[in-house]
Amino acid sequence: MSDGYNKIIKKIADNTVKIGVLGLGYVGLPLAVTFCLKDTKVLGFEKSSEKVELVNAGKNYIGDIEDADLETVVKNGFLEATDDFYRISECDAVLICVPTPLDRFKKPDMRFIESACTEIGQNMKVGTFICLESTTYPTTTEDLMLPIIGKESGMKVEDDFWLAFSPERVDPGNEEYKTGNTPKVLGAMTEKGLKIGMDLYSIAIKHMYPVSSPRVAEMVKILENTYRLVNISLINELALLSGKMKINIWEVIDAAKTKPYGFQAFYPGPGVGGHCIPLDPFYLEYIAKKFNFDLTMINTAGHLDNLMPHRMTIKISTALNKHKKPINGSKILFLGVAYKPDISDERESPALKIMDEVVKKGGDVLYHDPHIPTVNTEGGNTFNSVELSDNILEEVDCIVVTTKHKVFDFENIGKKAKLIVDLQNAYPARTEKIYKL
Amino acid sequence: MSDGYNKIIKKIADNTVKIGVLGLGYVGLPLAVTFCLKDTKVLGFEKSSEKVELVNAGKNYIGDIEDADLETVVKNGFLEATDDFYRISECDAVLICVPTPLDRFKKPDMRFIESACTEIGQNMKVGTFICLESTTYPTTTEDLMLPIIGKESGMKVEDDFWLAFSPERVDPGNEEYKTGNTPKVLGAMTEKGLKIGMDLYSIAIKHMYPVSSPRVAEMVKILENTYRLVNISLINELALLSGKMKINIWEVIDAAKTKPYGFQAFYPGPGVGGHCIPLDPFYLEYIAKKFNFDLTMINTAGHLDNLMPHRMTIKISTALNKHKKPINGSKILFLGVAYKPDISDERESPALKIMDEVVKKGGDVLYHDPHIPTVNTEGGNTFNSVELSDNILEEVDCIVVTTKHKVFDFENIGKKAKLIVDLQNAYPARTEKIYKL
Repeated sequence: MSDGYNKIIKKIADNTVKIGVLGLGYVGLPLAVTFCLKDTKVLGFEKSSEKVELVNAGKNYIGDIEDADLETVVKNGFLEATDDFYRISECDAVLICVPTPLDRFKKPDMRFIESACTEIGQNMKVGTFICLESTTYPTTTEDLMLPIIGKESGMKVEDDFWLAFSPERVDPGNEEYKTGNTPKVLGAMTEKGLKIGMDLYSIAIKHMYPVSSPRVAEMVKILENTYRLVNISLINELALLSGKMKINIWEVIDAAKTKPYGFQAFYPGPGVGGHCIPLDPFYLEYIAKKFNFDLTMINTAGHLDNLMPHRMTIKISTALNKHKKPINGSKILFLGVAYKPDISDERESPALKIMDEVVKKGGDVLYHDPHIPTVNTEGGNTFNSVELSDNILEEVDCIVVTTKHKVFDFENIGKKAKLIVDLQNAYPARTEKIYKL
Repeated sequence: MSDGYNKIIKKIADNTVKIGVLGLGYVGLPLAVTFCLKDTKVLGFEKSSEKVELVNAGKNYIGDIEDADLETVVKNGFLEATDDFYRISECDAVLICVPTPLDRFKKPDMRFIESACTEIGQNMKVGTFICLESTTYPTTTEDLMLPIIGKESGMKVEDDFWLAFSPERVDPGNEEYKTGNTPKVLGAMTEKGLKIGMDLYSIAIKHMYPVSSPRVAEMVKILENTYRLVNISLINELALLSGKMKINIWEVIDAAKTKPYGFQAFYPGPGVGGHCIPLDPFYLEYIAKKFNFDLTMINTAGHLDNLMPHRMTIKISTALNKHKKPINGSKILFLGVAYKPDISDERESPALKIMDEVVKKGGDVLYHDPHIPTVNTEGGNTFNSVELSDNILEEVDCIVVTTKHKVFDFENIGKKAKLIVDLQNAYPARTEKIYKL
């Protein structure tokens, strides 16, 4: 199919290529906008009709996108959203940005990828370039996607279409590195697929880095986030020991950072959150079992992380106990439920898990988060963010600092509070009133 | 003792202070020379009369020191070595750079620190500043050293002497960061002790970083090296899985390195070696038990590292098996026994452990290392480095790349060898002849 190959290469060179982006979430929408800002036509596919309407009205719902950018690219006709997957047939390239969650047993839930592949296979035209961006276990592209697309389309990879994997590296809230200026890794099943993918992404992404296969690219993303999970778990464990040894772990980390080589700082907290770090390593653990391999480092890190909400609840209980109070019946205010500072995302946030456990123990739980007005927890609780009045600060038995949003006035909070359990190093030292992780 | 305090502060300011350095090994001798090059008088204490003679003859035996520097500072009278510990009484400050090994049960062996403290306590004059540089578990300075020095001297800390901890950060073979330009952390038992220590070290060290206590400084060093052990163990485990999944882990790491934030690359190999990484984390594990705390991340990493030599032996066995040969009776040549490239130190080197195991299985073991002419293994074997002739390369059944010294001509080795087990990514891809980790 050298004809089709030449055609798509030329379309990319002319920037007349039309790209389909499947899934308009925190990965897909920024990716779509980044292409559109280079005057590339993007058709966004999204099952949520609410999101489709918002996008087509030029209304932004993703923190990492400038409102004006989305408005402009929609107005100028570069971006259109649709829930009609038949229109995949209009696209020369399809980039898949669907969720890859874990189920409640920490097993990969591949339904969104499978469904995307079915839609693509049923609707794509000959000569389409397909690339998955969602984090998943190595071998997914070759062993899961290819058979579905092949079966549904009746087409053959390399002859009729090209298949690749290029992991998203979105870091929500990162002011410096956005979709366009974060280097991007790409691995394709065939040489021509790699060339098409490199050319295509290079329209919007400054630095593309090719690797020899999709499975290498799949492993890259897992390595990056496994590295983070393992190091956060390590520093959390050292923080717990340091607390017992009357060592301020944050002081230790800041001093260790003066080493000019061979060290990278990670900071302790109530546990890992978000859509990547708590999930990605367990994709690898899942596929490793197929190879009769136990990943003991991931396993231990996961075990530690699992225990963190419980351990943090014990911290709250210990702090209250010093003030001769139990959790049961005490009013406990959580500051911040986002999984990291200054964002509005509470997915997998350890704060919610601690709140659930405190409720179970009879605690009267409140929370305040300026970025998140309401939350539903895994434990089936619903909370609404309360106003942070001096009254509230003075009234509650204990304030737990779970997220260190910039907007928090910790000086005033420290003055008004009866007791603070500081899980985020908001206060420099332990005192009668301040109990630190 | 504000009198003694003012006196030592003035002596430091005038650079008329005399420093005793206890232990003239890979930490103490570079430290001594770094001070001497600033025209500070140093008296080096060393129990090995061989080393004393070498130093006093201006003869260097440490790779990280320029021969000419040592010669100069001895000739100019700034550096003198002695085995007479009574002369500690001549010194205004004593810096302790003795070994802190683990015994065969991975328990800290504190005899060298204890003996140094006894010698200092018995011989020091009033107004001495004492600082430990050896890596050890947090609380050592306060709970182990102070009582010994106090008892032996009959003196009181702050009144009669000052006590501090400042971890060495020597990285043998590092061309960029030497003793003088590597930032140094310092924690003292008292405020005046901290001020003296900061002033004193600042003579020779560009960037000093004070922390609030010796135990914080002790923890800093442990954190730095625990971070390394954990990450090397993680990447070794991922390398073993990647081998099974036909993924080149080195390609994965190089791609992950393109992420401009939140990632630091570690590379797999046959296991950790040297005098720091395999040891330091277990100091912390030791003291943690006193606090009823299990360090599961260190424990898992240590377990993995312990298994590496055995797993590498299995790799050799698997590779030979493909060539229809057993280990028993095969001639196996190891390339490199140093624990890292381009240095002459084989302490804790995993190569030696693999060689021991291969000998046990009946292998005929040879090695070549241009930097290390002879080795004695834990298993009681003695080997002498053989010449790397084409004859040898062609003759042996298997060549195992254990250290990637720059001087090795891997192209020629690859041409001549029958079979190579490449544990260090010396060759880019697996072939019939090359078996990779």
